[in-house]
Amino acid sequence: MKTKGNRTERELFHLFWDNGWAIVRSAGSGSTPLPAPDLLAGKENRTLAIECKSIKKGKRYLNKEDFDQLVTFASLFGAEAWLGIRFNNLEWHFVKPEDLELTKSNNYILSLNLIKNKGITFDKLIK
Amino acid sequence: MKTKGNRTERELFHLFWDNGWAIVRSAGSGSTPLPAPDLLAGKENRTLAIECKSIKKGKRYLNKEDFDQLVTFASLFGAEAWLGIRFNNLEWHFVKPEDLELTKSNNYILSLNLIKNKGITFDKLIK
Repeated sequence: MKTKGNRTERELFHLFWDNGWAIVRSAGSGSTPLPAPDLLAGKENRTLAIECKSIKKGKRYLNKEDFDQLVTFASLFGAEAWLGIRFNNLEWHFVKPEDLELTKSNNYILSLNLIKNKGITFDKLIK
Repeated sequence: MKTKGNRTERELFHLFWDNGWAIVRSAGSGSTPLPAPDLLAGKENRTLAIECKSIKKGKRYLNKEDFDQLVTFASLFGAEAWLGIRFNNLEWHFVKPEDLELTKSNNYILSLNLIKNKGITFDKLIK
């Protein structure tokens, strides 16, 4: 059972509902290695598969293979893949997989810099 | 947290993966009254919101208001609403909301009869 980032995940969950989208939180795939996004939101012809990360300060790293599962899932489902980042007291920002930077040790770097350069806000995401 | 029908729900979850669909099990909406299907499956341009019920024998009743939440969710998400029924040792059958029969006390009746008259198999559902 996934527990990490549960509080911020719920916050985003309600943000979608409050803006007229339907959304589910994934229960994960249990003991199986099948991919599952944290959130799956839909409205009319758009479906968003979202992985949520919160950062208190500085940087955070995300294993490339873990995140690639989201991209695989989204591609199969027919959804857009997004990384949702909640940096400290900033509002939610969203980054596309192709905008992430990879370290030499095969991790993605999540930072304030990434949000500022590549991120879009919730309002832009749902437009 | 939803627990009812977890075993059969997982069975259907894997059936979708095994047939090339992506699927999530919903974690429910926690303490909030927001609607959530048991399963949300997607492939290419189709999204299916599925409520799962298992019946050991005879009939089972389903509260209309509870099920109507699935229809509301599906409509908002842009998904098809389906009721998945696993009757005893039969394979999975799927029924559309409009094919359900209502009792005077505002419940839907799930039965072998319903499956035989209105249900379609998994193979037909995913075609």
